[in-house]
Amino acid sequence: MKTCTEYLFFNTKKRREMVLLTPRLEEIVDKSGIRDGFCFVSAMHITAAIYVNDLEDGLIADIQEWLEELAPARPDYRHHQTGEDNADAHLKALLLHHEVTLPITNGKLDLGTWQQVFYAEFDGQRRKRVIVKLMGVV
Amino acid sequence: MKTCTEYLFFNTKKRREMVLLTPRLEEIVDKSGIRDGFCFVSAMHITAAIYVNDLEDGLIADIQEWLEELAPARPDYRHHQTGEDNADAHLKALLLHHEVTLPITNGKLDLGTWQQVFYAEFDGQRRKRVIVKLMGVV
Amino acid sequence: MKTCTEYLFFNTKKRREMVLLTPRLEEIVDKSGIRDGFCFVSAMHITAAIYVNDLEDGLIADIQEWLEELAPARPDYRHHQTGEDNADAHLKALLLHHEVTLPITNGKLDLGTWQQVFYAEFDGQRRKRVIVKLMGVV
Repeated sequence: MKTCTEYLFFNTKKRREMVLLTPRLEEIVDKSGIRDGFCFVSAMHITAAIYVNDLEDGLIADIQEWLEELAPARPDYRHHQTGEDNADAHLKALLLHHEVTLPITNGKLDLGTWQQVFYAEFDGQRRKRVIVKLMGVV
Repeated sequence: MKTCTEYLFFNTKKRREMVLLTPRLEEIVDKSGIRDGFCFVSAMHITAAIYVNDLEDGLIADIQEWLEELAPARPDYRHHQTGEDNADAHLKALLLHHEVTLPITNGKLDLGTWQQVFYAEFDGQRRKRVIVKLMGVV
Repeated sequence: MKTCTEYLFFNTKKRREMVLLTPRLEEIVDKSGIRDGFCFVSAMHITAAIYVNDLEDGLIADIQEWLEELAPARPDYRHHQTGEDNADAHLKALLLHHEVTLPITNGKLDLGTWQQVFYAEFDGQRRKRVIVKLMGVV
């Protein structure tokens, strides 16, 4: 049994941005030599999420608009009395969830044909971190 | 330490359907011989989810209606410019989350009295797949 | 490789309440001697959730109000025909998700600076249970 930990860093140009992670995760899995197990991916911030869905620009825009409808940026959150202005980013991150577990089978991420892993940034333009931890049999 | 992987297949009659998974998962756990560990269950599609909640028809209908309110089927999603018509199914799946981890203790799924595991199909009537991966001590 | 299981019990004074879990989880990780692996935390009830976000009272109130907007307490859920009155608690729990996996690195929970783990009760004032299961290398 083996474990393996890596940290990925992000500093998005836009405040809100979806960043494709799958190729980087595939490299980490390859390098680890783990044949069977789990690849856990988690944002280490409370205004970012990890999600699995389609690599299709239209859908990514739909997801962004949908998140804005369900968790709108607004001035009147209580959290903003602390001087912050990003309460909506916390809510958007809660909605998509901050972590995902991916199965590893035969040394590869065992994802469906259309499953792609994304880092969802809701309060970017600064350095942020994602932990990738693998556990499994070599 | 042992790992064990199985794939479940679904082809629902209706486009949207909730399918109870718990009995099938219990069989897989039994067969694996794993006494302590995790049973990971994940849809391999981006228009289906796995969730844990009540086996009560009224509540299942409430969940369906609630998902329709929060992520309605509508013609005007950008994703539909690709020829697809299922953007709402992606959003509904994101809301419920596509995967779940279940604890195994003393060789059994260690769930609360009312916790039941469901496959939530939002764009069915075709063959779809769920991965079940167990890891633990025998 | 080692596994370790503990159960936490809650009986909140209010029907809806967020309870900070991080210090108790840190103790469990310390005691386990696990250096590298995962700490899985899951509500064993279908009207409670586990989530990771900010320990800031304003934001906690924002999250409560937001959940009430997206999954309001209402008399007319179908689930209530069974005599229950807590359908909204099920929906709120689904929204936040009932479980979380936390990474353990160098014998400690490997969380970001602002990440705190909470038990979110939506139908309390009675004894409820959370499972904490660790797996990793000593």
